[in-house]
Amino acid sequence: MPPFPTISALHAAYASGLGPREVLAETYRRLAVIDDPGIFLTLLPEAETFAAAVALGPFDPIKKPLWGVPFAVKDNLDVAGLPTTAACPDFAFVPSETAPCVARLLAAGAILIGKTNLDQFATGLVGLRTIHPAPRNALNADLVPGGSSSGSAVAVAHGLVAFALGTDTAGSGRVPAGLNNVVGLKPSLGSVSSRGLLPACRTLDTVSVFAGTVADADRVFRIMAGYDAADPYSRALPVPTQPAGLPPGLRVGIPDGASLRFGGDPLSEAAFAAGLDDLAALTGRPDAVVLAPMFATAALLYDGPWVAERYQAIRPLIETSPQSLHPTTRAVIGRATAFTAADAFAGLYQLAELRRAADALWEYIDVLVVPTYPRPVTCAELEVDPIGLNSELGTYTNFVNLLDLCALAVPGRFRTDGLPAGLTLIAPRGRDGLLAALGARLHAAAGVPIGTSGESVPVSEAGPASAGPDEIELAVIGAHLSGLPLNHELTGLGARFLRAVETQADYRLYALPGGPPLRPGLLRVAAGAGAAIAAEVWALSPAAFGRFVAAIPAPLGIGTLRLADGTSPKGFLVEAEGIASGTDITRYGSWRRYLAVQSAGADRPAAAERQFLHVA
Amino acid sequence: MPPFPTISALHAAYASGLGPREVLAETYRRLAVIDDPGIFLTLLPEAETFAAAVALGPFDPIKKPLWGVPFAVKDNLDVAGLPTTAACPDFAFVPSETAPCVARLLAAGAILIGKTNLDQFATGLVGLRTIHPAPRNALNADLVPGGSSSGSAVAVAHGLVAFALGTDTAGSGRVPAGLNNVVGLKPSLGSVSSRGLLPACRTLDTVSVFAGTVADADRVFRIMAGYDAADPYSRALPVPTQPAGLPPGLRVGIPDGASLRFGGDPLSEAAFAAGLDDLAALTGRPDAVVLAPMFATAALLYDGPWVAERYQAIRPLIETSPQSLHPTTRAVIGRATAFTAADAFAGLYQLAELRRAADALWEYIDVLVVPTYPRPVTCAELEVDPIGLNSELGTYTNFVNLLDLCALAVPGRFRTDGLPAGLTLIAPRGRDGLLAALGARLHAAAGVPIGTSGESVPVSEAGPASAGPDEIELAVIGAHLSGLPLNHELTGLGARFLRAVETQADYRLYALPGGPPLRPGLLRVAAGAGAAIAAEVWALSPAAFGRFVAAIPAPLGIGTLRLADGTSPKGFLVEAEGIASGTDITRYGSWRRYLAVQSAGADRPAAAERQFLHVA
Repeated sequence: MPPFPTISALHAAYASGLGPREVLAETYRRLAVIDDPGIFLTLLPEAETFAAAVALGPFDPIKKPLWGVPFAVKDNLDVAGLPTTAACPDFAFVPSETAPCVARLLAAGAILIGKTNLDQFATGLVGLRTIHPAPRNALNADLVPGGSSSGSAVAVAHGLVAFALGTDTAGSGRVPAGLNNVVGLKPSLGSVSSRGLLPACRTLDTVSVFAGTVADADRVFRIMAGYDAADPYSRALPVPTQPAGLPPGLRVGIPDGASLRFGGDPLSEAAFAAGLDDLAALTGRPDAVVLAPMFATAALLYDGPWVAERYQAIRPLIETSPQSLHPTTRAVIGRATAFTAADAFAGLYQLAELRRAADALWEYIDVLVVPTYPRPVTCAELEVDPIGLNSELGTYTNFVNLLDLCALAVPGRFRTDGLPAGLTLIAPRGRDGLLAALGARLHAAAGVPIGTSGESVPVSEAGPASAGPDEIELAVIGAHLSGLPLNHELTGLGARFLRAVETQADYRLYALPGGPPLRPGLLRVAAGAGAAIAAEVWALSPAAFGRFVAAIPAPLGIGTLRLADGTSPKGFLVEAEGIASGTDITRYGSWRRYLAVQSAGADRPAAAERQFLHVA
Repeated sequence: MPPFPTISALHAAYASGLGPREVLAETYRRLAVIDDPGIFLTLLPEAETFAAAVALGPFDPIKKPLWGVPFAVKDNLDVAGLPTTAACPDFAFVPSETAPCVARLLAAGAILIGKTNLDQFATGLVGLRTIHPAPRNALNADLVPGGSSSGSAVAVAHGLVAFALGTDTAGSGRVPAGLNNVVGLKPSLGSVSSRGLLPACRTLDTVSVFAGTVADADRVFRIMAGYDAADPYSRALPVPTQPAGLPPGLRVGIPDGASLRFGGDPLSEAAFAAGLDDLAALTGRPDAVVLAPMFATAALLYDGPWVAERYQAIRPLIETSPQSLHPTTRAVIGRATAFTAADAFAGLYQLAELRRAADALWEYIDVLVVPTYPRPVTCAELEVDPIGLNSELGTYTNFVNLLDLCALAVPGRFRTDGLPAGLTLIAPRGRDGLLAALGARLHAAAGVPIGTSGESVPVSEAGPASAGPDEIELAVIGAHLSGLPLNHELTGLGARFLRAVETQADYRLYALPGGPPLRPGLLRVAAGAGAAIAAEVWALSPAAFGRFVAAIPAPLGIGTLRLADGTSPKGFLVEAEGIASGTDITRYGSWRRYLAVQSAGADRPAAAERQFLHVA
C-alpha cells in the first residue's frame, strides 16, 4: 500500500497483485499507530471490511471504478444499520436506508471503514464542538482540526482512507481540508442528492469530498452526482464527464487589497502571495476584485435568520431536551428563536439583492481564488474565543453556498513556519469541472506533499486547449480555416482558435461546384475507406454558434466530427447527395493544400502537388 | 371609437383618420356614464391625457406599437408624480420613478388614464377590501368585482381602456378577469420586472395584464417582458416574440372528478363542461388529472408562513399604526406574528416537496385547464363570510405562483343564468406563449362578447407562423416532435412551435439503431428517389439553437431542409454512413406513424400498419 492511497495508486497496486485485505489491514494498522480516538464515531470491525472486499469479486476497475478503495463518511450521513449521531448521542437513530450518495460509492466498489466525528450538528468550522474527544489536526496537534467535517479531513490527511465524505453549508468541507493539507471539493448545490443527509441549513447544505488529490475528489464527485427526483433540492446541473483541460484565456480574480483578510498574520499573507505566483504562471496575471457583496452575504448568514434552519432540523430535541446539546452548539442554534417569519423573508430578500450584486463579478472573471481561511487557529486560542475565531475561519467560505457557487479547496504552499495555508477556487454553479482543471494544476504547482504523507502530488497533464464552460467547439475544414476567405465569419462572431488537429481516418473530402468562395465537403465513410483530413477547432458562444449554423448553405451542415485527438466536436459535414457533382480531393488531406496546388497553376500541377505532399 | 377598444381596432381607426383626442374624450364620456367612483383612485385630468397624446407625434404603430392606446395601472405600481396608495391613504407616497413595466408601455405610446382601486395591499380576491367605494362588478352589481386588481378588471370590462395592469400573487390577476368577462394574463414569475411594484409576497408577486382579447394581453406582456438586472427576482426567461401556433398533439389536462370544486353550484359546473367541449374540439379529448399537490400547496399558502411576506412589506405601518388598515386586511396580515423564522423555513421545505410532486404532472400534460373560480360570489354572501368565500374564489389560482407556473384566464361560456364562468390555462414557467396560442382559440370558441360590450372576440388568425427577426427556424422530424420523448429539449430552451409541414419529396427516413429514445435519420436523396416526410418547424433564439445543435449526437446533424411549403429552414439530417445499420421506413411518411405501428404490436404488423395509415 502506497504511503498515500490515491485511487490510481491503489488500483495500480491491485493490478500488480496486492489484495484488498492487505490494504484494509494497513488502514487499521495506521489507525492504531495514529492513536487518535477522535476521528471515528463508528469504526467498522476490520473483519467486516474484509468481508465487503471479498464480496466485490475480482478486481474490475472498469465496472467498479472505486474497487477496493477505503473511504469514510461523516456521521451526519445515513448508512443503513449504523447509527447517525451528528455527534449528539441523544439524537442518534439507526437509519434503514443508505444515503444515495453513499450507496453510489458502495456500488462503485468503495469500502466503508467508518463514520467520522464532526462539530455537533455540523454547526461550526473548528472541529472542537463535539462531546467526544475531538480529532487532532493531522499536521500539528496545536491547531484546531477544522470542522465541521473534522474526522473526515483528518482521516484522509493520515492516508487512512483514499477519500471521505463531508458536508458543507458554510465551509465545513473546505476549512478542515485546508487545515489538514488535503483537497476539499464542495460541489454546486443540488448536484449530489442530499437525501440521507441530516440537514444543517437545508437550503444551503451539500455533500462534499475530501481526498488527497483533485483528480480523486473529482472522480468521487462525478460518481455521486446526478439528479434525484426524490430530493426536492436536487437540480439537473451539468456534471463534467472527465477531467477538463484548462481553457485558454481563463479569467482569474483574486481579492483586492481591501478584501484580503489574514487576521493580522503576515506568514499567511506571504503564503498566499507565493500561491499567486504559481497561479500567474498557469493563467497569467489575475485581476483584483472587490469582495464586498461576498462579505455582506457572510454577515447576513451570521446575523440573519438562517440559523432557524438549524433549529428547525433538530426542533423537537432542542425544544424538549436542550441539555443534550454541546453548550456552544446550543448557544449558537438557540439564537434562532429571536427571528420571526417576517425576519426570515426579509433575510431572503436581502440575499436575493446580494446575489444579484455578486453575480456581476462573473461577467469579469471565470474563477475567484482566495485563501481557504485567513490564518490557522490554535486550540488554545479557540478556547478563549470559541465563536469569534470560528467566524474568522469562515471568512472566505461562508458566502459560497448562499451565493450558489461551487468551490474547491486545494493545499497551497506552506507558511514559512510550516503551518498549512490552502487556496480555494470559487466559480458559479455548474462550473465544478473548471475548478477541478485549475485546482489540479495549482495543487501540483505548490509542490506540497499529500496530507501527512511524503508523497508528492502527481503533475497534472496539460491537455490541448478546449472550449470554456459556456462555449461550443466547432471544427472547420474548408473556407473557414485561418487565413481563408470565410475565416472572418468566425472571428466576426468572436470565435476563438483552440487547436489544429486532423480528423480520424474515416472521411473523404470533396471540392464542391460553385463559388467563390470555393468550398469543400467532408463526408464520413466506412472505416478504412477514408483518410485523415486537416481541421481547426474553434470555440464560440452558444448564440454565435447558433447564428453561424443558421447561415450555412446546403448541401453543407453541422454534425459531430471524430478527431484524431480523441475529441468529438461539432463540425462541417456535407450531405451525401451534395457531392454528386463534386470532385474527390481526399488525397490532399487538407483543403489548404488543395487550394495551394490549384493556385500554383494548372500548367504545372504535378510539381506543385509533389512539393506540398512532401512538406506534409 | 369601437365599442370595445382593442389595440388593432384602435389602430385601424387611427389609420383611417380618427384622432387620439376623440378616443380619450370617449373614454372620459364612458366613465361619466358608468358613474362608478370605485374604479379609479387617481384619475388623470382629461387635458393631461390629451397632452400626452399630442406628445406622441404622428401615428406610428411600428415604432410605437401602443400608439394612442389608453390604459390604467393598479395603484400598487409606481408612476412618477402620482401617489402609490395600495388603497391605504396612511401608507401613500409619491414615487419619483415610474415602474419599468409601466415605463415600457408609455415608451410604446400607451396613454395612462389613471390608477385603479384594489383590495388593500393587494390582499384579497374579492375587491371589497378597500376603504374607498369598491368598484362595481361590470356585468352584475350583485357580484363582487373580484380582486385584488378590481379596478383594473372593471375598467377594461367597460371598454374604458384597452388594457390595464394588475398584479397577481394568489389570483389577483385572474379572479377579477373571470368575474368581469375579460382576459387576465399572469406571466411567469420574473418575466416582467417587479421594480416599482409594492410587494404583497415578494417571492410570489408578478405584474399581470387585463385586456379584451388574448392577443392584446399577449402583446402588452411582450412589450413589458425582459430581464432586469436591478430586480433580484427578475429571471432571464424566454419571451415569445409573436403569437404562436398551436402545436399539434398538445396534451391538455383537466381536473379529475375528485379535484373539481364548484362550491356546490351546478350552473358553474355545467358552464365548465360546455367549455370542455370547445376545448376538445381544439385539442382533442383532455386527460383528467389529480390536483392533490396543487390543493396541498394552496393550503400551505393559506395556513403557512407566506403571510409574513405581506407583514414585512408594510411592517413599520402595521407595527406603529394598525388602525390605518382595513379591518379584514389587518386581521389577515396580523396572523403573520404567529410564525417564527423556523416556521418560515419549514414552509419553504414543504413547498419544495410539493413542487417536486406537482412537477410530475407536466410529464403527462402540457397545459392544465381549470375553472377560473368555483362559482361567482355575491357581495351579500361575502359580507357574511369575508374570509372563507375569499379562499373559495382562489381554489384554482392560489397554487400557481407557489408552483412557479404561468396562467391565462379567458372568458368562457356564460352560465345559463348569465353569470360569468371563466377558464384558466396553466403551464410551467416560460410557456406563456403556448397559453396565449390556446387561450386565444378557446376565447374565440366560447362566442362571448368582450367585457360588457356587444363586440365579439376576433377569431384568431391560424396562418402559418414563421420565426421572428432574431429567431432561427428548426425543422424536426423525430423524437423532438410534439409529444415525443425529446420534445422537452425544445420547450426547455424556450422554442416555440410554428407549423406542421412535410418535406419536399426528396428524402428517405431511417429508423436508427440504439435508444431509447428511438431516433430516425432523414437523408436527402436524388430527385424522384425519395418521399415527403412529416416535420414540425420550431423557432429558437440563436443561443438556444446553438446549444441545441451542440447537443445533437452523431450520426445526426443539422443541415438545410427543403419543405413542401417552399421554406428551407435548418433541420435534422443524418450522415449517410450513419444509416448503414438503420431500417428504411420511408413508406410510413412520418416518424410518429412509424412509432404507432411499432407500438401496435410486432405480431400483427400488417393489420396495424394498415389501420394507422388509414387513420392518417
